[in-house]
Amino acid sequence: MPRVALGLDFGTESVRAILVDTANGRELGTGVVAFAHGVMSASLAGKKLPPEFALQHPQDYLDGLAQATKKAFASARVKPDAVVGIGVDFTACTVLPADARGEPLCFQKNFAKNPHAYVKLWKHHAAQEQADRVNALARQRGEGFLKRYGAGVSCEWLQPKLLETLERAPEVYAAAERVVEAGDWVIWQLTGTETRNACAAGYKACWAEGEGFPSEDFLAALNPGLRGLNAKLTGSEVQAAGARVGGLTAAWAKRLGLREGTPVGAAIIDAHAAVPACSLAQPGELAIILGTSFCHMLLGAPDAPAVSGVAGSVKEGILPGLMGYEAGQAGGGDLWAWCVRELSGDAIRSEAKKKKSSEHAVMASRAAKYAPGGTGLIALDWLNGNRSPLNRPDLSGALVGLTLSTPPEAIYRALQEALAFGTRVIVENFEAQGLPVTRIVTSGGIAEKDPAFLQILADVCAREIEVARSGQACAVGAAILGAVAAGAKGGGHDGFASAAKAMGGVRKKTFTPLKEAARAYSDLFSEYKTLADYFGKGGNEVMRRLRKT
Amino acid sequence: MPRVALGLDFGTESVRAILVDTANGRELGTGVVAFAHGVMSASLAGKKLPPEFALQHPQDYLDGLAQATKKAFASARVKPDAVVGIGVDFTACTVLPADARGEPLCFQKNFAKNPHAYVKLWKHHAAQEQADRVNALARQRGEGFLKRYGAGVSCEWLQPKLLETLERAPEVYAAAERVVEAGDWVIWQLTGTETRNACAAGYKACWAEGEGFPSEDFLAALNPGLRGLNAKLTGSEVQAAGARVGGLTAAWAKRLGLREGTPVGAAIIDAHAAVPACSLAQPGELAIILGTSFCHMLLGAPDAPAVSGVAGSVKEGILPGLMGYEAGQAGGGDLWAWCVRELSGDAIRSEAKKKKSSEHAVMASRAAKYAPGGTGLIALDWLNGNRSPLNRPDLSGALVGLTLSTPPEAIYRALQEALAFGTRVIVENFEAQGLPVTRIVTSGGIAEKDPAFLQILADVCAREIEVARSGQACAVGAAILGAVAAGAKGGGHDGFASAAKAMGGVRKKTFTPLKEAARAYSDLFSEYKTLADYFGKGGNEVMRRLRKT
Repeated sequence: MPRVALGLDFGTESVRAILVDTANGRELGTGVVAFAHGVMSASLAGKKLPPEFALQHPQDYLDGLAQATKKAFASARVKPDAVVGIGVDFTACTVLPADARGEPLCFQKNFAKNPHAYVKLWKHHAAQEQADRVNALARQRGEGFLKRYGAGVSCEWLQPKLLETLERAPEVYAAAERVVEAGDWVIWQLTGTETRNACAAGYKACWAEGEGFPSEDFLAALNPGLRGLNAKLTGSEVQAAGARVGGLTAAWAKRLGLREGTPVGAAIIDAHAAVPACSLAQPGELAIILGTSFCHMLLGAPDAPAVSGVAGSVKEGILPGLMGYEAGQAGGGDLWAWCVRELSGDAIRSEAKKKKSSEHAVMASRAAKYAPGGTGLIALDWLNGNRSPLNRPDLSGALVGLTLSTPPEAIYRALQEALAFGTRVIVENFEAQGLPVTRIVTSGGIAEKDPAFLQILADVCAREIEVARSGQACAVGAAILGAVAAGAKGGGHDGFASAAKAMGGVRKKTFTPLKEAARAYSDLFSEYKTLADYFGKGGNEVMRRLRKT
Repeated sequence: MPRVALGLDFGTESVRAILVDTANGRELGTGVVAFAHGVMSASLAGKKLPPEFALQHPQDYLDGLAQATKKAFASARVKPDAVVGIGVDFTACTVLPADARGEPLCFQKNFAKNPHAYVKLWKHHAAQEQADRVNALARQRGEGFLKRYGAGVSCEWLQPKLLETLERAPEVYAAAERVVEAGDWVIWQLTGTETRNACAAGYKACWAEGEGFPSEDFLAALNPGLRGLNAKLTGSEVQAAGARVGGLTAAWAKRLGLREGTPVGAAIIDAHAAVPACSLAQPGELAIILGTSFCHMLLGAPDAPAVSGVAGSVKEGILPGLMGYEAGQAGGGDLWAWCVRELSGDAIRSEAKKKKSSEHAVMASRAAKYAPGGTGLIALDWLNGNRSPLNRPDLSGALVGLTLSTPPEAIYRALQEALAFGTRVIVENFEAQGLPVTRIVTSGGIAEKDPAFLQILADVCAREIEVARSGQACAVGAAILGAVAAGAKGGGHDGFASAAKAMGGVRKKTFTPLKEAARAYSDLFSEYKTLADYFGKGGNEVMRRLRKT
């Protein structure tokens, strides 16, 4: 009988359960269930929500994980008692207020119609004003936590979201005895043990090992009512990913058909779960998730410093014992989808019709025919702003070199090249600050489906690009957390080095830079940097001004 | 019986004949005939042509004008003997080699297959290398003619085209006793009198009143074989537009059904014919032709100086007695056609289908819904290079401000605004050099059909924009030349001021700048100028480098 880890991968719209053999990483079964309430951004209980709201219903997480687990077993030849450990990854900061026993406030009748009593999803963007105040005050007071976050505190993070709750719904804030990341809340439900995971706390709540959360004095200076927030957070230990939080409760064991006491590991942010699934566990190894946006996670030596131009430098933020760095590109596959949706002219659509192919496929195949840098165009990939290293959501995209013979596929290709340039800037930013990048492994939808882009990435970065073996790397990463929680004696692994080696992995096929292409891109990358400096570093603030129109 | 002038308007693909009442400009009849051989750019007599060739067959001009004139009479209630004068406008430099009697060399059997014996059409671009040498040598020798041509000598002009003939087909060059603009050649045929028109000579062959053509020494330094070129050109007087060259020959009178001896006026370049048709005859008046590209023709006082940033400053180049300035934008309506053809995505085409409308109409109507500068985009309109004031065909288009919500109609609108900005730059270039622009009248296809663009132009330039009364302004301009050749006593007019006033004209409906729009555009124009300086004046030569890929 194989020993199996159950990974629970909570995305924005759905939860995926996966059963992974702890010995070799084989994926034995999987099930996906969409959240019943989805993302609530228009209305709640028949009442219109304010702009920028994005809420979820916590009951969906519990029902979803139970159904997804059942589906996974239904698709696998695995007996439930083969499961040796459970791991969870979750979007963050996706946070909810609860009472002392962990019951969400939105379950209470008097709060059932109050939006602030629900889960504020990571992409709830209504706390921008609060985030601005957090940053301004932290800068003014010289708060030490700021140095770990090159980009400053985002409106997506915990303190702005809670400050918003305090100021917009003080009755909810007052009733919230506990404030908890949804990933930690799910684990609390499964085990009866409250915990906080270091990944979400570190990247989304300004927590650091040895320093804790921002001080009560700082919080009180933001708003006197915020004094005491940390007590709502830190009644329990902050634990590194995969640390054994506890065992499955009898009730949940029954509901899932698993053994009572099955070890459950501390959670991790969804993207970060890809790191062990890519078999990465050493300093210098970089995982890139290529999806609608791009996320770059680098492991550093235990004593490596915080660096600038990243979203966060967090000790034990990704894997125990190591520094973790997160950077990102705010636009990724989204840019190509935009180009196909908005800019597919006559030629593209006739060919798609003729070949009974999708316009995206035709666009991509035409774009692939250009020699490196052969479109005559250069683009800036900031259509959704720049996350790293500039942290400027007020930037935008640019195209230079248009002629009357420029077809849309040239724009598509230029956007591909620009996104690769954007990744190279992030890699060079790490290296310029003494963090060599020794290996790059990609995962996510684009790594799965777009070899042309991976070759461009290899050529632009002049490095070998590897691809995660699994098409659902984050879910496999969650399972790895479960195996680590189980430990070797329990049928899992002692630590990530062993678990990632056994259960994670990359494909044989890698993408190697071609000499000539790398040379051509090296010239074009200089052009990219010159334009990026001009538009992004104060040479011409026209993008910021245009954003205001 | 009305007194009628016959205008013969030779375009790139066809000739238009128009019959215009000399008293009031009424258009009494018109006929258009396409050239039988069209533009020969692929092959000649079954033999493939070199790249960049664009030839025509001179017989087409004669057959075409005869048929078009017949058509014009067929559509009019005018008796042929009502015609008091004939005027001609023609593309330039559109030049052919002939023998001493004016017979084109291509009519001779031994030259019938030699491409250099045919008409080299204005857009014959095979003499770029020769143009480069003309410019380099002229700069080196400090030739005075250069100061009149901010842009230097183009490969479209006469001397490069003839140097090409000398070097590629010396036998043709040797046999060419006469070298003549096609417009002048047509008049030679009609009257038996050889002439050269000041407009084409001035704008396309470096001629100036009092200075003549570039010196024989200069020509010989280019290539010793070129010594003597001027003798092939100036066996006759250079005459200002509308000067009476002679009377219609008996043979042509018979062929056209007109009176023998009907006065024929000296020719003008096609675009320039729009000036009197727009009723412009005073210093400070600017005619703009809005077509696939844009052409700007300003009248100056007789003693006004040559200025920089224009294609040419030519005394009597447009109207007798006045300075004439020509500037241009290399891309115009072409840009919108490109945007519609290449970038009409899902939303545009579904709406077009649903409304049974053209995609161009849908794109334009969506673009018209933006507030001035409300797209969040700014564009540089150089998709076909920049003609004035930078004279840099190596520049290209740019778009700044793209986001994931940018639709193609925003790009379309940004290109409209950019073209208006490009015109404002040209107007400001004139004014900065002491040439006030007191009036702007537009003509051409876009002036006819695109009121939305005219309003943008008015708002951007913060000036009233007028529109030529006639939808075929160049042809009316040719007829005005005929009326001037006839003179008042002959049933026409003594001079352009009178002819333009009587026969030219503008519509009642003008486009007045709206205060708020003008203010919004004033800010955006500053952004345009900053970007134009950066990309066009050496801040970043990326466009030139991209053109080479």
